[in-house]
Amino acid sequence: MSYKNPLPNYINGEWCISQASEFLNVVNPATAEVLTQVPLSPKSDVEAATQAAADAFKSWRRVPPTDRIQYLFKLKFLLEDHIEELSRTITLECGKTYGESKAEWQRAIENVEVACGIPMLMQGYNLEDVARGIDEMMIRQPMGVTAIIAPFNFPGMIPFWFMPYAIACGNTCIIKPSEKVPLTLQKVFELLEKTGLPKGVVNLVNGAKEVVDAILEHPTIRAISFVGSSPVAQYVYSKGAAHGKRMQCQGGAKNPIIILPDADMEMTTRIAADSAFGCAGQRCLAASVAVTVGEARHIFTDAIANAAQTRVVGFGLDDGVQMGPVITSQSKARIEGLIQQGADEGAKVLVDGRNLKVSGYEQGNFIRPTILQNVDPKSEIARTEIFGPVLGLMHLETIEDAIALVNSGQWGNMACLFTNSGAAARQFRYEAEAGNIGINIGVAAPMAFFPFSGWKESFYGDLHGQGRDAVEFFTQTKVVVERWPKNWSRQF
Amino acid sequence: MSYKNPLPNYINGEWCISQASEFLNVVNPATAEVLTQVPLSPKSDVEAATQAAADAFKSWRRVPPTDRIQYLFKLKFLLEDHIEELSRTITLECGKTYGESKAEWQRAIENVEVACGIPMLMQGYNLEDVARGIDEMMIRQPMGVTAIIAPFNFPGMIPFWFMPYAIACGNTCIIKPSEKVPLTLQKVFELLEKTGLPKGVVNLVNGAKEVVDAILEHPTIRAISFVGSSPVAQYVYSKGAAHGKRMQCQGGAKNPIIILPDADMEMTTRIAADSAFGCAGQRCLAASVAVTVGEARHIFTDAIANAAQTRVVGFGLDDGVQMGPVITSQSKARIEGLIQQGADEGAKVLVDGRNLKVSGYEQGNFIRPTILQNVDPKSEIARTEIFGPVLGLMHLETIEDAIALVNSGQWGNMACLFTNSGAAARQFRYEAEAGNIGINIGVAAPMAFFPFSGWKESFYGDLHGQGRDAVEFFTQTKVVVERWPKNWSRQF
Amino acid sequence: MSYKNPLPNYINGEWCISQASEFLNVVNPATAEVLTQVPLSPKSDVEAATQAAADAFKSWRRVPPTDRIQYLFKLKFLLEDHIEELSRTITLECGKTYGESKAEWQRAIENVEVACGIPMLMQGYNLEDVARGIDEMMIRQPMGVTAIIAPFNFPGMIPFWFMPYAIACGNTCIIKPSEKVPLTLQKVFELLEKTGLPKGVVNLVNGAKEVVDAILEHPTIRAISFVGSSPVAQYVYSKGAAHGKRMQCQGGAKNPIIILPDADMEMTTRIAADSAFGCAGQRCLAASVAVTVGEARHIFTDAIANAAQTRVVGFGLDDGVQMGPVITSQSKARIEGLIQQGADEGAKVLVDGRNLKVSGYEQGNFIRPTILQNVDPKSEIARTEIFGPVLGLMHLETIEDAIALVNSGQWGNMACLFTNSGAAARQFRYEAEAGNIGINIGVAAPMAFFPFSGWKESFYGDLHGQGRDAVEFFTQTKVVVERWPKNWSRQF
Amino acid sequence: MSYKNPLPNYINGEWCISQASEFLNVVNPATAEVLTQVPLSPKSDVEAATQAAADAFKSWRRVPPTDRIQYLFKLKFLLEDHIEELSRTITLECGKTYGESKAEWQRAIENVEVACGIPMLMQGYNLEDVARGIDEMMIRQPMGVTAIIAPFNFPGMIPFWFMPYAIACGNTCIIKPSEKVPLTLQKVFELLEKTGLPKGVVNLVNGAKEVVDAILEHPTIRAISFVGSSPVAQYVYSKGAAHGKRMQCQGGAKNPIIILPDADMEMTTRIAADSAFGCAGQRCLAASVAVTVGEARHIFTDAIANAAQTRVVGFGLDDGVQMGPVITSQSKARIEGLIQQGADEGAKVLVDGRNLKVSGYEQGNFIRPTILQNVDPKSEIARTEIFGPVLGLMHLETIEDAIALVNSGQWGNMACLFTNSGAAARQFRYEAEAGNIGINIGVAAPMAFFPFSGWKESFYGDLHGQGRDAVEFFTQTKVVVERWPKNWSRQF
Repeated sequence: MSYKNPLPNYINGEWCISQASEFLNVVNPATAEVLTQVPLSPKSDVEAATQAAADAFKSWRRVPPTDRIQYLFKLKFLLEDHIEELSRTITLECGKTYGESKAEWQRAIENVEVACGIPMLMQGYNLEDVARGIDEMMIRQPMGVTAIIAPFNFPGMIPFWFMPYAIACGNTCIIKPSEKVPLTLQKVFELLEKTGLPKGVVNLVNGAKEVVDAILEHPTIRAISFVGSSPVAQYVYSKGAAHGKRMQCQGGAKNPIIILPDADMEMTTRIAADSAFGCAGQRCLAASVAVTVGEARHIFTDAIANAAQTRVVGFGLDDGVQMGPVITSQSKARIEGLIQQGADEGAKVLVDGRNLKVSGYEQGNFIRPTILQNVDPKSEIARTEIFGPVLGLMHLETIEDAIALVNSGQWGNMACLFTNSGAAARQFRYEAEAGNIGINIGVAAPMAFFPFSGWKESFYGDLHGQGRDAVEFFTQTKVVVERWPKNWSRQF
Repeated sequence: MSYKNPLPNYINGEWCISQASEFLNVVNPATAEVLTQVPLSPKSDVEAATQAAADAFKSWRRVPPTDRIQYLFKLKFLLEDHIEELSRTITLECGKTYGESKAEWQRAIENVEVACGIPMLMQGYNLEDVARGIDEMMIRQPMGVTAIIAPFNFPGMIPFWFMPYAIACGNTCIIKPSEKVPLTLQKVFELLEKTGLPKGVVNLVNGAKEVVDAILEHPTIRAISFVGSSPVAQYVYSKGAAHGKRMQCQGGAKNPIIILPDADMEMTTRIAADSAFGCAGQRCLAASVAVTVGEARHIFTDAIANAAQTRVVGFGLDDGVQMGPVITSQSKARIEGLIQQGADEGAKVLVDGRNLKVSGYEQGNFIRPTILQNVDPKSEIARTEIFGPVLGLMHLETIEDAIALVNSGQWGNMACLFTNSGAAARQFRYEAEAGNIGINIGVAAPMAFFPFSGWKESFYGDLHGQGRDAVEFFTQTKVVVERWPKNWSRQF
Repeated sequence: MSYKNPLPNYINGEWCISQASEFLNVVNPATAEVLTQVPLSPKSDVEAATQAAADAFKSWRRVPPTDRIQYLFKLKFLLEDHIEELSRTITLECGKTYGESKAEWQRAIENVEVACGIPMLMQGYNLEDVARGIDEMMIRQPMGVTAIIAPFNFPGMIPFWFMPYAIACGNTCIIKPSEKVPLTLQKVFELLEKTGLPKGVVNLVNGAKEVVDAILEHPTIRAISFVGSSPVAQYVYSKGAAHGKRMQCQGGAKNPIIILPDADMEMTTRIAADSAFGCAGQRCLAASVAVTVGEARHIFTDAIANAAQTRVVGFGLDDGVQMGPVITSQSKARIEGLIQQGADEGAKVLVDGRNLKVSGYEQGNFIRPTILQNVDPKSEIARTEIFGPVLGLMHLETIEDAIALVNSGQWGNMACLFTNSGAAARQFRYEAEAGNIGINIGVAAPMAFFPFSGWKESFYGDLHGQGRDAVEFFTQTKVVVERWPKNWSRQF
Repeated sequence: MSYKNPLPNYINGEWCISQASEFLNVVNPATAEVLTQVPLSPKSDVEAATQAAADAFKSWRRVPPTDRIQYLFKLKFLLEDHIEELSRTITLECGKTYGESKAEWQRAIENVEVACGIPMLMQGYNLEDVARGIDEMMIRQPMGVTAIIAPFNFPGMIPFWFMPYAIACGNTCIIKPSEKVPLTLQKVFELLEKTGLPKGVVNLVNGAKEVVDAILEHPTIRAISFVGSSPVAQYVYSKGAAHGKRMQCQGGAKNPIIILPDADMEMTTRIAADSAFGCAGQRCLAASVAVTVGEARHIFTDAIANAAQTRVVGFGLDDGVQMGPVITSQSKARIEGLIQQGADEGAKVLVDGRNLKVSGYEQGNFIRPTILQNVDPKSEIARTEIFGPVLGLMHLETIEDAIALVNSGQWGNMACLFTNSGAAARQFRYEAEAGNIGINIGVAAPMAFFPFSGWKESFYGDLHGQGRDAVEFFTQTKVVVERWPKNWSRQF
């Protein structure tokens, strides 16, 4: 695959050159190959996109929902038809394995499918005679121009937590991909263009902080969806709110999984390894701390160490590779530093994935799966989001202690329990302070017809992405109270 | 009625003296009588209330919803039993007529009734087999400690847009009334105490800005509901968000009503006068601009002028009084200044309500209904929220022009149309950029089972008060993804 | 308590003498005392009630839902205020213990509470622009005259699965109690009268088959709710449908409970005994077959036998009594005959409750808790609804066999599982063909905000009683498709 | 196009020869050409289909909803790809114009689209802590084998009101098309086969009454959807209920449209003519009576007469044809007889469409649009469903009289009002006793995401076709009440 250089923006139905004066290299993290350059678009590009989106909104909101969804039906089929190319693109710029990339698209497509249900999902409600002869009805209407600011780790899926709903509801939309992985949305926008969507309904602006700030400050943009790290999520939430906008901001995590002695250890280990090391640990639902309870300790420790050691690391398009590199060399250095910090704080580096060179990919940002044993719950490393293939092990004696640990931190994205006990599962579900709970599940990612429910500092706002929440986020309620004079009906 | 002096707070199930060192007079706006003093509680009082609420939350969230609502059923009946005393209290400190006060309680009680439905409203949703053998369920759980910051104009009703839902959902709650009208919530909390609610579930902290800031900054408080003027709403939204909280902030308005030539003029005039001058214009759903279209002009102008001139102004507990004073002498001066500004900008003061003395209440903050004719849509007065009994008149030739006027401002709380045309009503409903729309209605206040839906600068956030929105605001979604190993069921 | 003799009907807001020529004794099943006589009303009484209900409907449907529910709020408080008298009445005519009677009222009251939410529950839905400029809305409107035919075993609760919803939705209603237990509804109607409900909204017609047939045939009656035995349910469903009516008919059951080896045996035994022997086994959610799996067999058998032997049987108003008599002497004879049939078919009568005389109540229809061991799944007794305090024991080796047994019969009211295994619970929930499933629950009665979901021959129809189902059953959907000519809005 | 002769059934994933001994000709109603022969399948064919469907159900219900809908996404695209051939087929066997056939497919496809939302629509609901530590959840599970009995007038659309929902919910399905128009479903099943649906999920059995009765009596079939004439609907409802099944039966109609003096007469006439004469009047939402109010009389009468006279009648595949023949020569004779009856009862045959020969199609069953003036509301013809292109005119002086007329009959399928008055529209919407209401709409057919809501003798049952109703009809609710012993979670 070859790419335009620099990458264009897509504004008002046309591919157009950014007015940027600065550019960044887009790098294959497995090979260090420069794939192309991405512009750091200036405020004026956001201005143009917003203008296009605002203009398009006027007629797009009047297109009946049943017609709007026809573009999404087409999009579903186009995504399915191009899933191989789309998956290769993610692997090339983001590093994850081809299988992981493909699974990411499956989740993206599911969101398109759910958004196809908008004629049902967008309905309002009504009641006759709220007082004698007075009727009341709530209708959902679109917001106007919306914006999505996406992270690097799921360049395909995450914009789809929002975009299909935004446009199905009658809004228009501006998407800013991560400047590290801008290629994927180039492909997506090529398909969006093929659907025949009216110009201006979806717009793509490449760039970094200047684009983010321009979006947050623009008076025309009504609602913003953000996914990224918690500090940036908090910044975005705070600044967007200060500009009066409707906001939903998803942040980071440090997700614990709890393993009870009655868990199926073979299954648990497999699932835990996939959760901790899948996508090289660069996902907000990665397991990053495994807490064994009681007798689960030794069997799990041995098994997970083995799983870590045997995981095949390499270039994601190569056969048999189970884990790719992390996103940048800076990221690699940061992760390796955090492993060292863990060791310095007293943890034992049971499996050490540092200093890995993958033959043929010596320039790649590879780290092997790493396990820190005896992590002290009070240590820094126990709380810090590593965002790499590093799993910390802790041990506790009771499920109550384990739940207390889950609830002690500032994060609340995911918590999982491995057990066969219905009682334990209920207690965990009831008590654990996290928005996404797994029972014998390692990556408790809600399906597209459920909200992706982070809690605490893993999420800022109230309505989440996906499903009904997304529909509510992208619509505003309008209540109509109606009375008709009685005698008038007798005028004939 | 006599009141404690100074008024106590209600924290952790007990009436307690504020640690305040500053106090304000609570003044009857019709008589200038000082009713009592209200403490300007310091941060430490908020701290105590938050601690009580946080402690109470631990057990309150475990009380089954069916049991939690029993307190609300009791509250409904207590409010009904005490409605006379409660209504007199509002009139005494807030100035509105006894009838208006009573109507306010009716709306408050309706919210209690709706919150009694929490076992239905708080339900989550679920699906079997999101993948083979994997089930998924969303459950709604309470947030924790929530806070409500209330304005002076509906001291009884507005806290009820939030509080019944907050506690029915299992949260605990801190309410700060307006320091101008603190007596009403004293009465409400006396009734709340009679319901037997566990201590700490509801807490009352009197005060002003220090209380607001303490609430906005307190890390334990999870969600805040605010109603007030737009600048303060924006401040609260922005600051609360900067502290990571879930926020819903209702602001001000400048509500237009549009009168088409085919409207029933007698009915329209009566409704318009009630909307503009009811509660002395001190409500966020008051009509403040009346736009006549085409031939509606002259007949409406004459009729509304007559209605304004004949409205009986006085002390709200006196018989036959149709309108009370405005809240403070400062407010009176400000409103009179704005009337003058309107005149200076070219409007004709068709009915001038300034310089009114009501016999026997010479110290009262009275203004008579006032009508400004020929208000220039571009003038300051056309946009400024007056929050007094002042109606501006404009004239336009088409409904399209009228809708354009509605949509031109920064506000979006309410817009009303008077007509018999179904076509006009549909066009207005579809196009008007306001969250609460009235068709032949003057105060389009949604019933408790609909959201109170301000738009634009009349509201910051996404989920509104009342009904389903309130339930969503006061709960957090938790998604549980569940898989059970198959072979285990064969162990027996 | 003394009663009118014969009992009156309540039609059009008045207590009135039935035109009956036949009467039945109402008998205390513990003492054989004749409490009073109940008329077997003729068709003409149904005609009068239907006429009253049809007349009342015209105005009742126009009473706003928010006003209609005020009667239900009052009813809730009246029921709570009179719960002792109401409970005594049930015990007197129906035989169950005072505690059981009181619990029955609790469930009745919960249905009133849920029906108080009708302004929310009865809402329709709507969408703008189903095609350009065309809007669509579904509104729920009441049916008209509805009827409820109630059984003897829950004279208080069962009418409340339907009636509060029927009238809250704007329908009017005729109730026919079981002629065996007519006193309870006399009390209920005295309270309904006190609520001030407009005349004709609720009507009471005492009687037996002639009343049932008159209801089924009457062209004005639109919807009928029935609870009784399956053969009668089928008759009623069939005949009502043949007359074009909307029907929901709940029938009998033979409810299995499955006990896995990992169940908490102490808890399980207690719950199982309460389920099998509570209300003397005369309830459609009574456990009537207990299936032990694997090692659960011996410990459960001994424990349940002990529980059966020690249960205190007597007059339900006496202190310490845990189980009352069955409803009639015929019923007693029938149950004792079925026990004998079980023995004849090969079961062992492990605990034999026949031939019991309770001292001081020698005329009462008492049977002691009875346990049949080694019931052959293929025997008659394994399938026949006994409706008495008789529990059959079976044994199987796997949960799969147990589920197959659950699914083999014609019934589908309830099935329960006792275990601590989440995996087993999921398998059971997924596979068991019954509408009400209990996990470590003995009487899986859905709360009022869930449907009471019988399956197979335990229910005929689709929409069930209670909650949302009841609201749908008692309303008809009306879809309004609306277009307004565009140019007309420009006529001004 | 050529067709197999005789037409096969489609059972268990295979096209198979019916065991029929009787056959009927399938005739092009415009040409009298015999297209092929349809078997009148015997009971044994139904038995085979039911067996196949029951077998398929076992695994189909376990296919995750997200996977089940993939077949429907494919079906949508296949239907769109083949819409020309599908439309020609309808015109050939059913007679309506090509444009009408195509519009019919549009409506069919919309139902497929809505059923694609089943992962959202099929969700149950749940609540934690219905009592302390007890949770409750409602899950929707499929019924099993379902059956659809379809009429001749919409051979493409009507099966789609039910089938997509039935299978999306996890049921399997048997469809019996009208023996007059069996070709369309042959085409549909060819496409269903192409989707790769597992064998036995959908089955096609051609035939007539013996098939209907076999379906109604078969103990394995759980739910039946029927559309046809009211007498047959009543027969089917009654017999299906007598066999204990869940039923929804849509019947006939006599739909009034009311024209107020303020209606846009040009638009009204066009819409009214399309409604009365479209599909040659052979639809259950055809306007069959037009009631003018006040001054609307003369202008509408002249205009509609003109529209009737100028409507181009002919073979539906020919260019410019606006109306095709009626379905059979018997039908033609019956309609012409009813026109005569109308005349005999005193109506004036203002436009007489009898005795029409279309050049080149002399054997076709053609009737020209016919208008009966001054129809007496009390005459037979005012109540009889003609099911042909015949519009009766009546005149009344007030809207109240018009609504009374609407409500006087036994039918309740549709009622429409033409007006610009919002007051009149509200009164009509509130009062008219019909399930599908049009305001300035001639064929008030609800979109697929609303229920098709007939009332009175136009519908037997409670849950309707399409949308949420269909999902509820094709699922059964299962309530799970769950408690887990507390101490067990402490076993580790």
